[in-house]
Amino acid sequence: MSTAAAEPVPTVTLRPASRIDLPAVLALLADEDSVVDPEMVTVTEAYECAFTAIDSDPRNEMLVLVEDADDRGQGGTVVGCLQATYIPGLGKGGAERALIEAVRIRADRRGSGLGRILMEHAVARARARGCAWVQLTSNKQRQDAHRFYAGLGFVCSHEGFKLAL
Amino acid sequence: MSTAAAEPVPTVTLRPASRIDLPAVLALLADEDSVVDPEMVTVTEAYECAFTAIDSDPRNEMLVLVEDADDRGQGGTVVGCLQATYIPGLGKGGAERALIEAVRIRADRRGSGLGRILMEHAVARARARGCAWVQLTSNKQRQDAHRFYAGLGFVCSHEGFKLAL
Repeated sequence: MSTAAAEPVPTVTLRPASRIDLPAVLALLADEDSVVDPEMVTVTEAYECAFTAIDSDPRNEMLVLVEDADDRGQGGTVVGCLQATYIPGLGKGGAERALIEAVRIRADRRGSGLGRILMEHAVARARARGCAWVQLTSNKQRQDAHRFYAGLGFVCSHEGFKLAL
Repeated sequence: MSTAAAEPVPTVTLRPASRIDLPAVLALLADEDSVVDPEMVTVTEAYECAFTAIDSDPRNEMLVLVEDADDRGQGGTVVGCLQATYIPGLGKGGAERALIEAVRIRADRRGSGLGRILMEHAVARARARGCAWVQLTSNKQRQDAHRFYAGLGFVCSHEGFKLAL
């Protein structure tokens, strides 16, 4: 039992990113310890192409967590993001699985429960789609992130390998 | 320097699986410690759908390693497989990355260098496509597999988390 008062849950919206959100998403991805101003981000042609590739692919989506969106969930301030890839496969009776990458919460908003909201929404989308499981990797140095994912029910069952080309 | 004689390199072909290979691929995926006869595999409608989803998606491919293929690389005996998923993303300047899963060599052919051939071909395909990196996860209990991937240059930099839905 904890005697701490319950934190207020922020009012946020999760939606697929639009092209207009691209600078804010790139700012989040560049943000390690401090907020990067989206207006300082250079949106190169390669980033435009990559965003179009994600946006036009029915098995990929860049989701953004937005504060102060309008009644239709549009506009507002991007404070988090993640990319989901839905992968067809021959395991688990032929079910899709969801791979989650590029999980970010804006540096000045961490610790306020937004990460949990972002991940819970993403897991719910994968479940609604019929995915058999959700998978992700997290750098071995990020032990705080490992506790976060374990707290959401994720099991740390695998080693994650990368080969730079 | 080693005084061991060089192992003969098996003559094999790597190609995208055709529908006719599906029972052999399912047999490989079911094979843990002994060879499963493809004729004993039940190809359900769900597996048919999943194979069609992989085969028709330009960002997914099921690759099979085949012995005794004909001059055009068709036919022959499937002795290995893996699935590659090419994922667009906003990291690394907007480059794709390749996710490799479902890596299998038939139980009676392990230890003969086929796994290395399979992975080296898959990495070469990812490089030719312009991917910035190749990534995969391997169950923490499979330490032989970890040594194998490390020997191919992969770095074990991440923890792999899964959530069953």
